[in-house]
Amino acid sequence: MNNITILGCGSAKPTRTNTPSSQVVEMCDKQFLVDVGEGAQITMRQMGLRTNRLDHIFISHLHGDHCFGLLGLLSTWGMLGRTRSITIHAFHDLQKLLKPLLDYFCQAMDYEVRFHDINPASHEVIYQDRTLTVSSLPLKHRVPCCGFLFEERQRLRHIKKDMIDLYDIPLARIPEIKEEADFVCSDGRVIENQYLTTEPKEPQRYAYCSDTAYNERLIPWIEGVDCLYHEATYTQEQEASAKQYMHSTARQAAQIAKMANVGKLIIGHISARIKDQALSLREAQQVFANTILAQDKTCYQI
Amino acid sequence: MNNITILGCGSAKPTRTNTPSSQVVEMCDKQFLVDVGEGAQITMRQMGLRTNRLDHIFISHLHGDHCFGLLGLLSTWGMLGRTRSITIHAFHDLQKLLKPLLDYFCQAMDYEVRFHDINPASHEVIYQDRTLTVSSLPLKHRVPCCGFLFEERQRLRHIKKDMIDLYDIPLARIPEIKEEADFVCSDGRVIENQYLTTEPKEPQRYAYCSDTAYNERLIPWIEGVDCLYHEATYTQEQEASAKQYMHSTARQAAQIAKMANVGKLIIGHISARIKDQALSLREAQQVFANTILAQDKTCYQI
Repeated sequence: MNNITILGCGSAKPTRTNTPSSQVVEMCDKQFLVDVGEGAQITMRQMGLRTNRLDHIFISHLHGDHCFGLLGLLSTWGMLGRTRSITIHAFHDLQKLLKPLLDYFCQAMDYEVRFHDINPASHEVIYQDRTLTVSSLPLKHRVPCCGFLFEERQRLRHIKKDMIDLYDIPLARIPEIKEEADFVCSDGRVIENQYLTTEPKEPQRYAYCSDTAYNERLIPWIEGVDCLYHEATYTQEQEASAKQYMHSTARQAAQIAKMANVGKLIIGHISARIKDQALSLREAQQVFANTILAQDKTCYQI
Repeated sequence: MNNITILGCGSAKPTRTNTPSSQVVEMCDKQFLVDVGEGAQITMRQMGLRTNRLDHIFISHLHGDHCFGLLGLLSTWGMLGRTRSITIHAFHDLQKLLKPLLDYFCQAMDYEVRFHDINPASHEVIYQDRTLTVSSLPLKHRVPCCGFLFEERQRLRHIKKDMIDLYDIPLARIPEIKEEADFVCSDGRVIENQYLTTEPKEPQRYAYCSDTAYNERLIPWIEGVDCLYHEATYTQEQEASAKQYMHSTARQAAQIAKMANVGKLIIGHISARIKDQALSLREAQQVFANTILAQDKTCYQI
């Protein structure tokens, strides 16, 4: 099951209930870490979250509340005996800043930290494998910043087990049948693919957009995603602050969700100034009903 | 009341219950932060701890679990509008490592971060004011490392209120009387200080010793302190690990406490490998009965 686990969904200043931004995205049986605010590794440990399928970290931008937890996590993995390399996809300044710290604090690690410099200003594929792709989503913020779009690739068709038996289909033929080939029986009969297979599930798509000012440019890229995580730092009343600091209001997040026709919206990154987060949720739901208010240490299906 | 508030008393790897090392020492109405492991600022916020009397931070050594929370804390103080400077007392490498990060992440702060380079190999006064001194305590660890000894200075004598009335003592005379001066009445009579004042309370002393191998050299420096916080990373069974990694066992911490004749011992920095910390506590108490097992988010009187 594809899902996201919110480690932290707070804004810049931690509060009693929210720690800085970090989430684990699980798709196609792989794990990806998106942003690593301070305390992410502590929350992982408190939740008993295993990260043995996590080989890629995506950093949206270089504000502290999105990356100050990186060094601690990398260091702890070293102590735990990690051997598989980790790739950090981020704006190039991160490598310059993190390298001297890794050299000083993490000298005896048995795994490699690889940096993949990304261009936050461009919408492009930054990771892909056989089952999914991850693309950058240029955001509007005070520093170079991008969101991330996780997309399952077209799944293979499901082959019906009883047809395998009925036509005595050899195992070697199954991959091509899953890719829509017909099957030719030993007596020459051609069985059309439509009788052998069923439609695969629709590939799922998840978009992470934090931090950003109201940004309609996102809409075509995230059109119809199953789940959108969008920052909602302020409420409508604080729209001037949203403009000044290049963040969104809950209402603006919902407007993007509505215009992009997404399946569901999760709002987070609520400012510490907002004492009652239910206000943000109500504001968003007035525009886009299927909105959820993110909580730390909580798992959501995509 | 002098006390210490443990923000984190874990070892290198965070566990479900323990975050990395950090504690707030309150003495003489001032606050001092000792070590700043990752998440210290988050715990402060969760505890609702105000740090408006905190102007000095002491870093024992440059292992991540003792300093990875610094940058986040300094950054958050900037966002909260702090204006009073902060002084970080630490081994000189810290300045070199932290400066580029402060320059990048904390550009628009209204307060100054000052670095006071200390020599962890030397037992010397590194901070003093009218009411207390803080000295370094050379420890034995894998990198340059020192503990910290907080000592109230000799307190002033208490002047008896009824004597002020009886001899009509002007306010201007009171400070010198508190410092043991006699009082000369207008008619020339000399009232000896012993009739005017009572003994001040004994000055309190607190020692923080983490991380360190068993180190008898500490004993004369911490002799008779009211409270000793000493690391107890391992149990007796793991004495070889303690030796290898230059840490102490719970028993060794208690031996130091006993030989130094301290008032009470608080043990912390328990390894994540130890599943039942009560074992560490029992081991220490067998040698030194007045031992407490440190807990995160807990305040202890000195």
